[in-house]
Amino acid sequence: MSKLVIVGTVAFDAIETPFGKTDKILGGAGTFIGLAASQFKVDSAVVSVVGGDFPKDYLDLMSNKNIGISGIEIVEDGKTFFWSGKYHNDMNSRDTLVTELNVLADFEPKVPENYKDAEVVMLGNLHPLTQMSVLNQMHNKPKLVVLDTMNFWMDCALDDLHNTIKHVDVITINDEEVRQLTGEYSLVVAARKIHEMGPKYVVIKKGEHGALLFHDDNVFYAPALPLEEVFDPTGAGDTFAGGFTGYLAKTSDFSFENMKNAVIYGSTLASFCVEKFGTERMLDLNADEVNKRLQQFKQLTQFEIELT
Amino acid sequence: MSKLVIVGTVAFDAIETPFGKTDKILGGAGTFIGLAASQFKVDSAVVSVVGGDFPKDYLDLMSNKNIGISGIEIVEDGKTFFWSGKYHNDMNSRDTLVTELNVLADFEPKVPENYKDAEVVMLGNLHPLTQMSVLNQMHNKPKLVVLDTMNFWMDCALDDLHNTIKHVDVITINDEEVRQLTGEYSLVVAARKIHEMGPKYVVIKKGEHGALLFHDDNVFYAPALPLEEVFDPTGAGDTFAGGFTGYLAKTSDFSFENMKNAVIYGSTLASFCVEKFGTERMLDLNADEVNKRLQQFKQLTQFEIELT
Repeated sequence: MSKLVIVGTVAFDAIETPFGKTDKILGGAGTFIGLAASQFKVDSAVVSVVGGDFPKDYLDLMSNKNIGISGIEIVEDGKTFFWSGKYHNDMNSRDTLVTELNVLADFEPKVPENYKDAEVVMLGNLHPLTQMSVLNQMHNKPKLVVLDTMNFWMDCALDDLHNTIKHVDVITINDEEVRQLTGEYSLVVAARKIHEMGPKYVVIKKGEHGALLFHDDNVFYAPALPLEEVFDPTGAGDTFAGGFTGYLAKTSDFSFENMKNAVIYGSTLASFCVEKFGTERMLDLNADEVNKRLQQFKQLTQFEIELT
Repeated sequence: MSKLVIVGTVAFDAIETPFGKTDKILGGAGTFIGLAASQFKVDSAVVSVVGGDFPKDYLDLMSNKNIGISGIEIVEDGKTFFWSGKYHNDMNSRDTLVTELNVLADFEPKVPENYKDAEVVMLGNLHPLTQMSVLNQMHNKPKLVVLDTMNFWMDCALDDLHNTIKHVDVITINDEEVRQLTGEYSLVVAARKIHEMGPKYVVIKKGEHGALLFHDDNVFYAPALPLEEVFDPTGAGDTFAGGFTGYLAKTSDFSFENMKNAVIYGSTLASFCVEKFGTERMLDLNADEVNKRLQQFKQLTQFEIELT
């Protein structure tokens, strides 16, 4: 079991989907990553910032889920980061309605002293300089650094992003973003270009089409579980990343073979995340349900061909 | 080993991709299906029609590949069906430049007498009435009927399509088409609706995202092999269908478990088809290459998780 540092937003989300809408509810990449990783009972610390308006109940909720909250700074006279979005009917695209950075605008992550020796670091989607500042605070080079990012940083902080991903072992990125970052349409060629930028492992998230893991000439393709209905996709990518990293932190085995399993765990947890609004499903998820769904993943993908 | 009847076009194609363009070359759904099925050395008959302009060399080529050509009618004073298309840069969409039905306009399929007892029938993409007329000629109800279709017939012959698919065991269809046919966005719900229309098995082709097999509450998801480059997608769907059906005809095992293997074989053969123009790669494919790629498919998809 490895210690895990997670940097990412802890936020309010307001979400509208064809199935309904919410008021301000608990959200943020750090929250979703932490919740997913908590399934593996790893010793984790979320590094983040919230305002004085952030309910103590939410912090207790995270703490009760075994997520370390000592790295969450509370700016008493500030307001918590707020995002609001509305999904289109196909659930594959959304409009951002509101982005209020608030306390996130001046966020300087502070890794708690007793987590500066963590073996695994998960850099949730944030400005690449913020991600880098977390790495700089670690006492030793972590055994595994996973980074999530998005097109926004490619548009407005590309050089910083390039500098940060040099120090990263695994990047998780969606198919459109990897095409933007590399200028290559073929995901095989794109992954090879990312290898040259630093990350030895590339995880390409394709939403309902699953996820690909690349390492040198090795490829693994985990399909997504076909779902009758996607209720709310918010946080699915972060939940995937949290499941992936949490499983690796728990097993402390960072081989390609074990990363296959990590991808399956990430996909499994993401398949729960989308069943309800925001964090609701992840807050109410037990190990039996996870195991049952893993079994479904096996049935979904495993076959027995005798070569002729 | 079951006898296999294939109905489908035998045609001239002229193809333009970002990588180059061809003159009129051998094409047609029946050709691609037959070539894929021939990998399994099944006793097959292609039922089709060509004009007097169709080279004897092409018929010899098919015959040498062990594809039965006795059901291919030659209309000496007619011209062979001709299709021409141009692919866009992403290879996922194309424009049809020319469609000359020619002898296909009056095509009345005639199943050779010694194939009217075939156990397996593959109905390639044609007017649903033409597909039905093949079924009507069979002496007994075949053990397995597979049907491929496309949006064109949903637009202009929907009632006939509904009547024909009532008699079908397996439908192969792409994701856009299954959404059009059922009016459902969720593929899980769409597959259930197709079950109600007749086919107990539904194969949804998703191109670079792989293929799904549905049967009641069972789902199997075969990803597509991530390719460095797709040279020419023409015939990939037919090759998939031919590989799927050919494998089932060879094994005469029509269970869901064995259909999983059939989907993997279909995907494997389709991954070769797109490597060169038209039928070129399929005409020059040996069993060692197929086995090697099946091994790649195993590495791509198989994992070993111990449930916790």
